Amino acid sequence: MKEIKIALLGFGTVGMGVYELLKKNSELIKERVGIRPVVKKILVRDPKKKRDIKIDQKYFTTNIEEILEDPEISIVCELIGGIEPAKTYILKALQKGKEVVTANKAILAQYGNEIWEEARKRKRFIGFEASVGGGIPIIKTIKESLIGNSISSIIGIINGTTNYILTRMLENNFQFKDALKMAQAKGYAEADPTLDIKGIDSAHKISILASLAFGFYIPVSEVYTEGIEDIDLMDLKFAKDFGYIVKLLAFAKKRKRKIEIRVHPTLIPETHVLTSVRLNYNALYITGDFVGDILLYGLGAGKEPTASAVVSDIIDAIEYSYFEKKPFIKYPLTKNNDFFNIRSIEEVEFKYYFRFSAIDKPGVLSKISGILGKHNISIASVVQIGRQKKKGSVPVVMLTHETKEKNVNKALEEIDKLDVVTASTKKFRILE
Amino acid sequence: MKEIKIALLGFGTVGMGVYELLKKNSELIKERVGIRPVVKKILVRDPKKKRDIKIDQKYFTTNIEEILEDPEISIVCELIGGIEPAKTYILKALQKGKEVVTANKAILAQYGNEIWEEARKRKRFIGFEASVGGGIPIIKTIKESLIGNSISSIIGIINGTTNYILTRMLENNFQFKDALKMAQAKGYAEADPTLDIKGIDSAHKISILASLAFGFYIPVSEVYTEGIEDIDLMDLKFAKDFGYIVKLLAFAKKRKRKIEIRVHPTLIPETHVLTSVRLNYNALYITGDFVGDILLYGLGAGKEPTASAVVSDIIDAIEYSYFEKKPFIKYPLTKNNDFFNIRSIEEVEFKYYFRFSAIDKPGVLSKISGILGKHNISIASVVQIGRQKKKGSVPVVMLTHETKEKNVNKALEEIDKLDVVTASTKKFRILE
Repeated sequence: MKEIKIALLGFGTVGMGVYELLKKNSELIKERVGIRPVVKKILVRDPKKKRDIKIDQKYFTTNIEEILEDPEISIVCELIGGIEPAKTYILKALQKGKEVVTANKAILAQYGNEIWEEARKRKRFIGFEASVGGGIPIIKTIKESLIGNSISSIIGIINGTTNYILTRMLENNFQFKDALKMAQAKGYAEADPTLDIKGIDSAHKISILASLAFGFYIPVSEVYTEGIEDIDLMDLKFAKDFGYIVKLLAFAKKRKRKIEIRVHPTLIPETHVLTSVRLNYNALYITGDFVGDILLYGLGAGKEPTASAVVSDIIDAIEYSYFEKKPFIKYPLTKNNDFFNIRSIEEVEFKYYFRFSAIDKPGVLSKISGILGKHNISIASVVQIGRQKKKGSVPVVMLTHETKEKNVNKALEEIDKLDVVTASTKKFRILE
Repeated sequence: MKEIKIALLGFGTVGMGVYELLKKNSELIKERVGIRPVVKKILVRDPKKKRDIKIDQKYFTTNIEEILEDPEISIVCELIGGIEPAKTYILKALQKGKEVVTANKAILAQYGNEIWEEARKRKRFIGFEASVGGGIPIIKTIKESLIGNSISSIIGIINGTTNYILTRMLENNFQFKDALKMAQAKGYAEADPTLDIKGIDSAHKISILASLAFGFYIPVSEVYTEGIEDIDLMDLKFAKDFGYIVKLLAFAKKRKRKIEIRVHPTLIPETHVLTSVRLNYNALYITGDFVGDILLYGLGAGKEPTASAVVSDIIDAIEYSYFEKKPFIKYPLTKNNDFFNIRSIEEVEFKYYFRFSAIDKPGVLSKISGILGKHNISIASVVQIGRQKKKGSVPVVMLTHETKEKNVNKALEEIDKLDVVTASTKKFRILE
């Protein structure tokens, strides 16, 4: 066998990237693996559409059956995005005995159970390196390089859009809205940025990583999610004064049989290596019982990095397809779901950053700290910034010692009802 | 097949780590891969030696033939270190049809040609993830995750000992000797630290990475190597004042058909992510034509991280051994050695940091800069620090624009002969 035939479903940015990579580095890949992956068909909605690429019309088809029924095509790359028809195509391709590669995080985070189960049942390969972290080899690292480790923690900056916005806010003194506009102008944020800024994209990705690391399917619906859309520049600056950088972090942690899985803005000590992850870069910080801490860093999105990940999956799919025996099923679902359960964020302990908006008069701090004390929240440091602005309210910033989220929620509810408090309190969790 | 039998050659720190990992995470691995790797024999010199581990004597043998001739043992892990007898054992194991896993960078960097050729000839797997970067999955990332990329550059902090020493010098105001003692006390440096501090260990590792990335064998003898043994605390501090951190970096770069491969202390701009790699951590910064820049970071040595890497190779070896067809030979040597050649460091252009030791009197700077000018070296900035110490000499620190190494060598030779110059000039290259 000298060539292996591939079909691409979808020919957007990533699809074009994959096509270009396989063309440009065709000789290199042949040299390295002994087999040349060749695109045979590309499923598109409109073959006549103007594209920024020179490509023969013969590649295009609008009919999925032409791909599914072609016995020469052994690998199908789903690069359409969205749930349908992508999900149906993936399942059909597996049923037709094809290996599948996908970059589709939404499907895996919402229907991973179904997809992985079908791949297992049909003994087919399903690659999804490109679904998290673009060109960063996070999936392979968890599945293969850390295969001897019990993984206890994954902490990631896995959304480039929000990381870009937060970096620009702090470094260029932008408010959220202006930084978002800049991200959109640069092509780092979409016209409708909801999925990114609300943390949903990060939640999709951490669902996939956690499922893989812990061995059972954890759908995105289990992920506690907060975005960055309400972050005020002021808080990034106060945090910096205390020695912290604010990042949107995704967490997946295992302690005994309890899993924590969540996405929220977090204060990171400036000495932590994750604070050096700026702009649209992504990074994943993983802790295993033998490997210790490792960090993977790179571009988490974009045409070329994502194509790099898709092609590494294509090569694995070739390897898998070419061999006759398939002993290894390195997917989630090896464990029964009953084995673990999800720890509610209410039960998790954090150190906190609070910013109270309070009227600047004697006795206010005593009222606030009284309520905190009643809920067993002990104060580590407090700063009152400025005096007597118009409306007579000032920001009071406070860092706490470790305490349970549910205590904090109760305390803040009480505090926000005080008549000396003029706006709802801002709360951020701090990374230890 | 439910179990696969393994032999360990050597039972030092790493050997014990592998044994412990396979014991502790045995169930986890079985769950993930469907097969349990089990240690059957361990080659040791003295079975009676006192060890920090409870283990049955039945595992031990002093006779390599007992392992090589055992048809039940399909994977041999060479964890002895040094060249002989390790090299002979690796070759014999391959000849006997066993898959081999090794952590031995010295053998691969000096005899990689022979080892990889034998593996290829015998169609056996040879894993060497543990030879570079401890638990950091750098080998798999290059071999598999970046398989679609033409890699143009690898820049690494790949020696924990020297990184620890440089970190302690700068952060704790230690001279080299004191920082070395501290590293030895912590177990991060050996009693004889030569291989580490002279950069030889880094040279071994970059030889392996470059061979893998560029596709032909580049032995360690081709690596231009400088260590950190002559670094003065003063230079770390002056560099910091200019906004740079000094690290021992290993480089492998490809431009057209020219390869640069070298190890030397380097000034890195403080904004670069590599400067956040402190203490005994390692990091690798890789650039590919599609993936862009990625960084892998973690503990580059130690019992547990290294065991994690060895076990990931064991699982790959199982996969390889279990399949009947072996289409992929992802080793160096795919290209003819004539295809590339090594660029002499004399031909490489750098920006430089110089520290001259000069007598503090008028006209000295003019003499020095005159010679630099004659050799086409243009000065970017210059600082003369302090005045008139005893012996009447002061440090003059200078940063240059880009210039060829050979110009610099000629200029410094002339400058160091000036009678106003009291000691040989210190020179560091700057990372762009």
